Amino acid sequence: MVKAQRIRIYDVARVAGVSVATASKALNDTGRMTEETRKRVKQTAAALGFRPNAMARALTQQRSFTIGLLTNDSYGRFTLPVMAGVSEALVDQGVSVFLCGIEDDPALAKLHLDAMLDKQVDGIIATGKRIDRRLPVDLSLLPVPVVYAFTEGPDDAVTLVSDDAQGAREATEWLARVGRKKLVHITGPESFASVVARAGAFRATVGQGAQVLHGPWSEAWGHEAVNRLWSGATPRPDGIFCGNDQIARGVVDALRERGVDVPGDVSVIGFDNWEIVAAATRPPLTTIDMNLKEIGREAGRLILDLAEGKPVDPGVRTLPCKLVLRQSCGGDAIAVRNQGEALQES
Amino acid sequence: MVKAQRIRIYDVARVAGVSVATASKALNDTGRMTEETRKRVKQTAAALGFRPNAMARALTQQRSFTIGLLTNDSYGRFTLPVMAGVSEALVDQGVSVFLCGIEDDPALAKLHLDAMLDKQVDGIIATGKRIDRRLPVDLSLLPVPVVYAFTEGPDDAVTLVSDDAQGAREATEWLARVGRKKLVHITGPESFASVVARAGAFRATVGQGAQVLHGPWSEAWGHEAVNRLWSGATPRPDGIFCGNDQIARGVVDALRERGVDVPGDVSVIGFDNWEIVAAATRPPLTTIDMNLKEIGREAGRLILDLAEGKPVDPGVRTLPCKLVLRQSCGGDAIAVRNQGEALQES
Repeated sequence: MVKAQRIRIYDVARVAGVSVATASKALNDTGRMTEETRKRVKQTAAALGFRPNAMARALTQQRSFTIGLLTNDSYGRFTLPVMAGVSEALVDQGVSVFLCGIEDDPALAKLHLDAMLDKQVDGIIATGKRIDRRLPVDLSLLPVPVVYAFTEGPDDAVTLVSDDAQGAREATEWLARVGRKKLVHITGPESFASVVARAGAFRATVGQGAQVLHGPWSEAWGHEAVNRLWSGATPRPDGIFCGNDQIARGVVDALRERGVDVPGDVSVIGFDNWEIVAAATRPPLTTIDMNLKEIGREAGRLILDLAEGKPVDPGVRTLPCKLVLRQSCGGDAIAVRNQGEALQES
Repeated sequence: MVKAQRIRIYDVARVAGVSVATASKALNDTGRMTEETRKRVKQTAAALGFRPNAMARALTQQRSFTIGLLTNDSYGRFTLPVMAGVSEALVDQGVSVFLCGIEDDPALAKLHLDAMLDKQVDGIIATGKRIDRRLPVDLSLLPVPVVYAFTEGPDDAVTLVSDDAQGAREATEWLARVGRKKLVHITGPESFASVVARAGAFRATVGQGAQVLHGPWSEAWGHEAVNRLWSGATPRPDGIFCGNDQIARGVVDALRERGVDVPGDVSVIGFDNWEIVAAATRPPLTTIDMNLKEIGREAGRLILDLAEGKPVDPGVRTLPCKLVLRQSCGGDAIAVRNQGEALQES
């Protein structure tokens, strides 16, 4: 039978042959006693594996060295990179991050939020699966600071999002840079703020008449969009910017099955850099990475500042996306980029 | 500027015009004071949003109503379903689960483990990305109970894993049931215990001479294996059991590109039921689900029993996998199953 026993101050006191009060004072270097007694209590505590109780310490310190991360992204697609970044920013400060998944359930959110507050977390980072939706819980009146990362926060909050417009602009400019002339954008539903921002940047770069096709966030939509473009009367594109990697994978597969060579005849670029999709596509996808880990790092730095009482300006901070080169835009992509950078440097 | 302020017992005392000791006694329903004073303190605490300090309460109760979940699965593929199950089992008991990601870093593991112990978690669930590897931290001498779920634990621990052999047997039997005669198994590296267990069950069902091909856990390996099987001299299979869904997706794509119809000519079954892969395959994959959520639920129930001091027998518990029907084994799959069940019932 397995039965674990937590070592308490009572156990230390009993084994050391002193009162609980004396044991406590000995371990806290307070009170009056012989050095021999104090030493015996400390040795006993060490031998038993007694942990000086952090909850008791935190009562006076008012710091628990723990940050709570609340998310409704049950799939973890967006949250796990954010969490890795938060963890990276906090680890050197000896601060741990605890994740609670609340799905879209207000009651579950309340339970987990209460648990975090009960544990006296020094701050909470709220994160989700899209930047234009709030978590199903109001965090605006908590007794601890809150940072919003990749989810919508109140107007006066500290919020971090990726720069969708800049990411889309980089994708579009990259297609132009590898020599593509007739560009289209195949993307997700217009009800997403990120879709509107990306399509806006695409049109601003290519021209307001540029073609944008909206549909679901799926491979199947990539197939369908290609079928529409290749069976229609309009000139076919030679460069396709997709709103996510799943759509891009569908587009690449559909083109191959039509005998259209990627990247020989058409360049395709995705968005997300979701390894499982981007790396498995044939050829692997050149795509835009939202830098979610950096959003997490910045959220970690900001929540620590707030927890320490440092002033932080509220508002929405956008962090840049970055281009990730694989093979779906052209095999000479790296050469093109290096050349470009050499030109900029000269 | 954003600056959050935690309401402390001092604040309550100050506003209510009493000492901290009196405020504390009033809120804990102890000590001597007039009913009027006690009421005023409680009303003040409520008005200020003061939270009775759970850390202080836990000091006496010896329960924190929190379970820690430690994982080295940074991708979350296996851990998030386990966590969802744990959370489901605990939520009705008012217990929260906190996830800490430790990757494969012993120092990070120590930091986060210490943070969990400092928060006085009532127990820890260890989980990972494969059942034959341990986390990079020794959990065998902790002062709180530990349950291992989908990761290897010590011999005398409580460990939960999915039944790889039963899952593989169900997959193989399903191929036979839809009428397939010549079966092969395309799977991952032999260094994985799960690969050995699944291949063993496949051979035990089909016959010891049955063909098993080992390679990486990737779509590319699925393509390569099909190329080998279709260009070799041996008779080609009409039923393929794949060790994971990624290999299965590669197999299905490779067959389609060779003009082999799935499921018309060949039935393909995967393993994992990883939605993003299984549902996007054309046709969508029939596959085996490891029931990770149920493993999480069971881990949650067991850790609660242990935390409450109930006896739990140590050892490895295997939980059954389940068959998930989509379209890659034959469109009449559901009819076949229903017929089978009807026969069993009669």
